[in-house]
Amino acid sequence: MSAIADFSTYKVISPIGSARGDDTHVTVHWLDGRTSPYHLLWLRDNCPCSRCVYSVTREQVVEILDIPEDIQAARVTLTDDGNLDILWQDGHASTYDAGWLRAHAYDEESLAERERLKPKKRLWGSSLAVPAFHYTDVMADDAALLAWLLAVRDTGLSLIHGVPTESGALVPVAKRISFIRESNFGTLFDVQSKVDADSNAYTAFNLPLHTDLPTRELQPGLQFLHCLVNDARGGSSTFVDGFKLAEVLREEDPQSFEILTSLPIEFRNRGRSSDYRYQAPIIALDENQEVTEIRMANFLRGPFSTPPATMPLLYRAYRRFIALTRDDRFRYRQRLEAGQLWCFDNRRALHARDEFDPASGARHFQGCYVDRDELHSRIRVLQR
Amino acid sequence: MSAIADFSTYKVISPIGSARGDDTHVTVHWLDGRTSPYHLLWLRDNCPCSRCVYSVTREQVVEILDIPEDIQAARVTLTDDGNLDILWQDGHASTYDAGWLRAHAYDEESLAERERLKPKKRLWGSSLAVPAFHYTDVMADDAALLAWLLAVRDTGLSLIHGVPTESGALVPVAKRISFIRESNFGTLFDVQSKVDADSNAYTAFNLPLHTDLPTRELQPGLQFLHCLVNDARGGSSTFVDGFKLAEVLREEDPQSFEILTSLPIEFRNRGRSSDYRYQAPIIALDENQEVTEIRMANFLRGPFSTPPATMPLLYRAYRRFIALTRDDRFRYRQRLEAGQLWCFDNRRALHARDEFDPASGARHFQGCYVDRDELHSRIRVLQR
Repeated sequence: MSAIADFSTYKVISPIGSARGDDTHVTVHWLDGRTSPYHLLWLRDNCPCSRCVYSVTREQVVEILDIPEDIQAARVTLTDDGNLDILWQDGHASTYDAGWLRAHAYDEESLAERERLKPKKRLWGSSLAVPAFHYTDVMADDAALLAWLLAVRDTGLSLIHGVPTESGALVPVAKRISFIRESNFGTLFDVQSKVDADSNAYTAFNLPLHTDLPTRELQPGLQFLHCLVNDARGGSSTFVDGFKLAEVLREEDPQSFEILTSLPIEFRNRGRSSDYRYQAPIIALDENQEVTEIRMANFLRGPFSTPPATMPLLYRAYRRFIALTRDDRFRYRQRLEAGQLWCFDNRRALHARDEFDPASGARHFQGCYVDRDELHSRIRVLQR
Repeated sequence: MSAIADFSTYKVISPIGSARGDDTHVTVHWLDGRTSPYHLLWLRDNCPCSRCVYSVTREQVVEILDIPEDIQAARVTLTDDGNLDILWQDGHASTYDAGWLRAHAYDEESLAERERLKPKKRLWGSSLAVPAFHYTDVMADDAALLAWLLAVRDTGLSLIHGVPTESGALVPVAKRISFIRESNFGTLFDVQSKVDADSNAYTAFNLPLHTDLPTRELQPGLQFLHCLVNDARGGSSTFVDGFKLAEVLREEDPQSFEILTSLPIEFRNRGRSSDYRYQAPIIALDENQEVTEIRMANFLRGPFSTPPATMPLLYRAYRRFIALTRDDRFRYRQRLEAGQLWCFDNRRALHARDEFDPASGARHFQGCYVDRDELHSRIRVLQR
């Protein structure tokens, strides 16, 4: 019988000292002093045996509703190798790996500990030392790949040097993570000044700081921008850490922060054959009030739609946020040269481009997207 | 000068009777009696002239921060063709199409009216007359296409007959909407019993009612399931309207509804080369407390992680929801035959499959995903 219905392994942080059952719980006392109660229903629900979990997929094949709500344990014991054994009153037997049990303990101390161990974002401003990597390392070496992906996750901006300057060369880089997310602009998009532009991105205009595709329910997670040639005058890249701006706003102007985290704003991306629209607040928070995403592109914004009494407050908040994006303390500027590639968290690192002069020389970037889900999955597999 | 920076046209619901400006607003009195105030900053922000909006992309090229917060109108007049003209004190001139202005009015009455006109979901149970369409109509006729897509949007479940039974035949159907959303299971996935299954979907097991890929931040919007052959015993399809179940739960057990709309649950989808995990409540609500999505697959659920005092409430709520999925009043059952295709809102219509006997005959379905953004974009373009 497998004691873990999982592809991961769980280190035994502390051995189990003793375990005691009553009508509703089994309480585990760990040798390091922690006490973890587990409800009987939770334990039965998480039985890893091959009748409860299909061993090939490691996916559950029973549903908790098929188990009586008042299930009782007949016997609670420790195995010789330190795991927890439960014999249930209906005769079913479950064995729980001690490492797995500790990793999934939900006493207050264990929950707080897991919260503390979550990866922390590193906020930045104009003086950022941008995490930089080399193409050959990232392509060949899983340790370099992991270092790069952790930088993307935690800093939200990275630079790769030495990428071949041929068309499509960014694809194998993106595929070191996973498949590419398609959009109506294609799998790969060419950022060049075009006569029949279907986005201001495809002009030579100054593009103010923005996230790509705020017009979609899920904005693309990672954006890759690869420079094939950059001989035109102008066209430098600027980035700001949108999470940093949000924290500054929260601190300096709580009312504007409240408005930008609660009022849905519509973004629109319309062309002859598509009409994308999505409404969401400019700053998204998780259940712990942590910033998880910025949604912002002035050139894709629809007319504000909010009751008359709220409208001046919304303009005040929006202008305040735009003013922060223009504040030099937060702007990291660098001109991308041929063979370099930006990879950044599109939902965090707002990006901008200076106006350039297409008559002064060639400028050709290629871009693509990979979502955050794929980034996190890849990191987990590399860390197994 | 274009009076609309848009690809849409806006019918004049009522002509403008008069317009009057003061220090902060222009107030429009419509001939049908409605009064709509517009803030000066809002009007200036939405100036559609070719200096403010690039006519090729219809995207804004000014930022509102570059306009003084206390901007004043020098003259407010109506044009001969009934539009609104504003001459600003700095000399800039703006013309607003009357139909556009009415469509974007934000007086309380106009906001309430737009809220009322939003498409309504049609909730259903076991007696659903499933909206059915024919392949040749949907492929050739844009009116049939639109009727089908509106059914998918509002009912969340549809059936298409007469689809060729060759591999890949669902792709052109999906592409009548847009590109296909890829996942780690591929662009197209083959639902067959496999020895090395990386999901219980690829076994012959009974699969309880679920949404696909609850392990991703954005669950796929539409799911296509195309039957190439179904000669095996068993394997009927069952659907429930998850939005209906959520409303029943809200009515009958508000405490459980509160828990399932607020406590994040982790779903996990792990294989040898991927490790997807996402945490979110089982029922998602929008800012008006309307249900927007169900996230549910018992076989992909991670161990519950919530403080000990909350755990019994979570199990109670979860069991209650599972019990609703098993209630015959809500279950629509139908066996899919060769040449038929389900297209359903994966985030609303939970789907299940009875166990089947792979020794009794061949069973081969193919599936793919398209997101809600693409559905809504396509509907808007068809309705232009």
